[in-house]
Amino acid sequence: MTFPADLLINAPDEVKIRQRLTRVARGDLPADTRLRVGRLLDVHSRMWLSDQEIIIAGKRIAYVGPAGSWPGEAAQTVDRSTLMAVPGFGEVHKHIESSHVSPEWEAALVLPHGNTWTCEASHEFSNVNGARTLEFWLAARLAGSPQKIFPLPGSAVPPTAYEWGGGWFGRDEQAAFMAESLMVAGLDEVMDWPAVWSPENPSYDRLWGMIEATFAARGVVEGHAAGMRDLPNINAFAAAGLASDHEAWTAEEVLDKLRRGLFMELRPHSVKEMIAGLLEAGLSDWSQFALTTDDRSCSDTMKLGATDYNVRLAIEAGLTPEIAIQMVTINPARHMRLTPWVGSIAPGRFADVVLLDDLDTLSIAQVWADGAQVSDGARYLKPVPQMDWPEWATKTVKIDRTITAADFAIPAEPGRETMQAALLRPFHWADDFLTMALPVENGHVQRDASRNVTKFAIVDRFSGAGKTSAMFWLGTGPKTPDSALACSMGHDKHNIWAVGSSDEAMALAVNALNDLQGGWALVREGQLVATVRYEIAGLMTCRPPEELDAEMQRLYTEGAKIDWMYEPTFSPRWYPGFPERLAFATLTCAPWRWVLVAPSPLAPEGFVNVATGQTHPVVW
Amino acid sequence: MTFPADLLINAPDEVKIRQRLTRVARGDLPADTRLRVGRLLDVHSRMWLSDQEIIIAGKRIAYVGPAGSWPGEAAQTVDRSTLMAVPGFGEVHKHIESSHVSPEWEAALVLPHGNTWTCEASHEFSNVNGARTLEFWLAARLAGSPQKIFPLPGSAVPPTAYEWGGGWFGRDEQAAFMAESLMVAGLDEVMDWPAVWSPENPSYDRLWGMIEATFAARGVVEGHAAGMRDLPNINAFAAAGLASDHEAWTAEEVLDKLRRGLFMELRPHSVKEMIAGLLEAGLSDWSQFALTTDDRSCSDTMKLGATDYNVRLAIEAGLTPEIAIQMVTINPARHMRLTPWVGSIAPGRFADVVLLDDLDTLSIAQVWADGAQVSDGARYLKPVPQMDWPEWATKTVKIDRTITAADFAIPAEPGRETMQAALLRPFHWADDFLTMALPVENGHVQRDASRNVTKFAIVDRFSGAGKTSAMFWLGTGPKTPDSALACSMGHDKHNIWAVGSSDEAMALAVNALNDLQGGWALVREGQLVATVRYEIAGLMTCRPPEELDAEMQRLYTEGAKIDWMYEPTFSPRWYPGFPERLAFATLTCAPWRWVLVAPSPLAPEGFVNVATGQTHPVVW
Repeated sequence: MTFPADLLINAPDEVKIRQRLTRVARGDLPADTRLRVGRLLDVHSRMWLSDQEIIIAGKRIAYVGPAGSWPGEAAQTVDRSTLMAVPGFGEVHKHIESSHVSPEWEAALVLPHGNTWTCEASHEFSNVNGARTLEFWLAARLAGSPQKIFPLPGSAVPPTAYEWGGGWFGRDEQAAFMAESLMVAGLDEVMDWPAVWSPENPSYDRLWGMIEATFAARGVVEGHAAGMRDLPNINAFAAAGLASDHEAWTAEEVLDKLRRGLFMELRPHSVKEMIAGLLEAGLSDWSQFALTTDDRSCSDTMKLGATDYNVRLAIEAGLTPEIAIQMVTINPARHMRLTPWVGSIAPGRFADVVLLDDLDTLSIAQVWADGAQVSDGARYLKPVPQMDWPEWATKTVKIDRTITAADFAIPAEPGRETMQAALLRPFHWADDFLTMALPVENGHVQRDASRNVTKFAIVDRFSGAGKTSAMFWLGTGPKTPDSALACSMGHDKHNIWAVGSSDEAMALAVNALNDLQGGWALVREGQLVATVRYEIAGLMTCRPPEELDAEMQRLYTEGAKIDWMYEPTFSPRWYPGFPERLAFATLTCAPWRWVLVAPSPLAPEGFVNVATGQTHPVVW
Repeated sequence: MTFPADLLINAPDEVKIRQRLTRVARGDLPADTRLRVGRLLDVHSRMWLSDQEIIIAGKRIAYVGPAGSWPGEAAQTVDRSTLMAVPGFGEVHKHIESSHVSPEWEAALVLPHGNTWTCEASHEFSNVNGARTLEFWLAARLAGSPQKIFPLPGSAVPPTAYEWGGGWFGRDEQAAFMAESLMVAGLDEVMDWPAVWSPENPSYDRLWGMIEATFAARGVVEGHAAGMRDLPNINAFAAAGLASDHEAWTAEEVLDKLRRGLFMELRPHSVKEMIAGLLEAGLSDWSQFALTTDDRSCSDTMKLGATDYNVRLAIEAGLTPEIAIQMVTINPARHMRLTPWVGSIAPGRFADVVLLDDLDTLSIAQVWADGAQVSDGARYLKPVPQMDWPEWATKTVKIDRTITAADFAIPAEPGRETMQAALLRPFHWADDFLTMALPVENGHVQRDASRNVTKFAIVDRFSGAGKTSAMFWLGTGPKTPDSALACSMGHDKHNIWAVGSSDEAMALAVNALNDLQGGWALVREGQLVATVRYEIAGLMTCRPPEELDAEMQRLYTEGAKIDWMYEPTFSPRWYPGFPERLAFATLTCAPWRWVLVAPSPLAPEGFVNVATGQTHPVVW
């Protein structure tokens, strides 16, 4: 008898797989493995069961019951009766791109941490190559990777009506995604809030078209309500059909959103404060909550952990381990309508099991996925598939010329000694931009390091022309002369951004990225001193996380030799030192207002208020 | 500005409705009603909020928050600040046919009891007229009825491979239903268990085809695991992808099913014992539970209540009112993937609100649905739509001839004085049928009232030919001579069944039903003494429940004048007296084995073991 490979979920295979499981469960067909465990957490009842066996056929669970109760024959019996079994952990909202390793390496990285399935919020890759979105996210699984990735096509493709290149998703595209694969659970975070509530916004029809297509296919519409604290907007957000939020920071904000029906996805940054506050407020029903990662670099994952880290934080904040585990298993699976496949140790689901040797510290002894042991302690046991990523994934930085210092020069009006300049800071969410009079030299407006002012630029990496926009920014970038930092990860459109103390240094850094096909480039005092290669979509590498981390550490080491400007701003996650988070400072979703994007028809100079569509010269 | 009528959910209208709600929530557009309530139960957090306002636009909620917090203008303000608001109650699994009133009258009956939405398990009507399933269930709503009916097409159409007529649903039919309307949440209870686990069963491909089509459209596959107590079958049931069960009787059975991932839908019959047992077992997470009705006549609803009755039982069993209310609101909505529309008082959902004046007794002061008050105490305030039900609904008993006593005669072999007869009892779930030697007179095998044996027959009401099968049954039917009871509701195929102490009386009763186009007919000592008219599909009437109840009471009164045979059997719900539950004794789903069906190609005499396909003569 042959059975489907059971890699990507589809209805016809699902029937064949479940027909087999049904007969295995009754003992009418043999199983592959009888896995005996000491205790098993039933997340449906939040109760522990002692001395259980999990019967596995193919990649799925056929039977769960007291040890010895299954009436059939298994090819092998595995005794793990000293360990506690809990379901494989799921991420309800994660950008794997932010790990900066490709999906086959992500699997090897996070599986030993218990993370067996992930709802991939796909707008990073999609903004680079929208047409290949599903092909990209499903390729590693098709090559045998035990991690289940459920891609949610990004609503933010492009992020706003003022951006372009790489991908454009509307009603028809989303309808096609939903129709193409049951791995697609819905629509990834709707984050251009002004485009949802304001009929005048040029992205209004595109976004509502994607929402319509998702409803039509019974999918889930994920939300992103960053900085949204007032009840009228929170209510409006829920009324729009956006089903979740992962952007809350305080217990009060969580309650305000939860009570309007949003499924709350708590991120690590303030999870301890949020949970402590919710417990203090008397919350005892956590069924509308998940814990999730959103963005975490592989370097941080190696240091902190993956989903397991999030669970540990929740336990430390005062939740019982059982509730915390529900928040990465049954709760997100139920929210994403994926319960037939993941979220519990129950028949029909993938045989993904995390085996703990200590509950309170969530100490993971080994992880099983697809019915086989995939890790022993921190060690991943499976071969990583050798992916031969095609050029549509590896050649995505398209700049058909050499960028020069002149690309970043900001000309002054003839005869002026100073000019007024519009300034932004990283994470500047005010209604208005800042202004400052800056000196003019040699016909160009100049930086002023003494006042913490440097230059920031965006270089289009999609058209081939290398269209460039530049302006002055406050409180970031090198004070060290002739230095620059550039990166091809620039959320969410992922053009190249560069910040520098000279236009020449910026050009040097950008050209290095063009050669590398993406990553980071650091120029110090005129010399290219460090690069990091993200050759997959300019966002990831298909090398082992350790190798990437070593490159990143070299970047940090070289970066530490530079004197970086800093001043505090709206984001609590904007720190002094090496400005790694500038990659997120190019976001254009709510609550951003004034931003710098690559030149676009609606914003020819690239400086635009994404909430209103207003543009403004960068100097005048 | 015009807005969609918002009766049946569909994606394009959904966008228009939510675009409006989004702007109303922000105060940018006016609302229709500002409803102020004293307390409001947020079922997402299971917490009460004091002094809240619900802002309503069209039939939906736009905003929920502290009284006075919404910044917009409403056409009217309604003060209900002495009352407590909880979400409209939902039925996760109900056969409205068992109310025996058509959907517009069901709405009038149950709305004052708080039941604003119902997942209609549609295989009763579907077995009568499969092609009109959606048209039938959605018609009352289209005519303005405030109750939301979400039809789930029945997997049991036909119930087994041994039945026919009225409807046939397979993969293509289910795919068409799922594609036709977002009101369709999935596939109704899969109940022919042998057809699921056994590849040899002639309904195997049909059932798995419907499961496949439901998975393909991201729908929910409902289960029915009656009498299933052993772990191998419970595991197999869950492995098959069947997501729920509503047939459990004991706490132990509930736990065994819950722990295999089944969403547990508790029915009233033993809900108090189940809940008490679960509480004793230490269960504290009720998120995978709903309370539901399944079958309840309008007479019983008038006496006991509707969904509110189920909630009261759960409270009496020891659950907090808040958890009990979650079990008829957010929990079933989440399970059925209907949270964007029902299950909580939150933006985007229908403005369905139950206003209580006492929580512990669940005393309902008034009910709102579609944004308007629809009841005051027990009184329904809205007009019941005048439905002009077409002939496809009202002419469904098709017997183009007069049935005679000869149709029920069971001939003996020539020269025999007795013959062996196969006997069934109502709810006889044993592997084997019973046998008895019965006397022969005038060439025919005879009843034996002294041994509690009478005759039971099925008359096909679909082909026009009135094909008939008959056999002897034990422990039911009239002892009173020349008497009979017949009914056009005979679960789940809904042919006519008749039980009688003479063949003539049975014929008289069946012919009366043909004239009535369905219902009940009672013959006592040769006279037709009572009828009840179910002119809609032979299952319901489109008259007020009070009128139907009056007919039923006359039937009971006349029925009480008959001496009814009885003996206990497998079902705890099989009682002495008027044998109303014979309408369910014709079921053919698991755990039934030997049954009597209308003559069919695979069972020419109608006597068949539905678990194995084996047939047997009724006498030999």
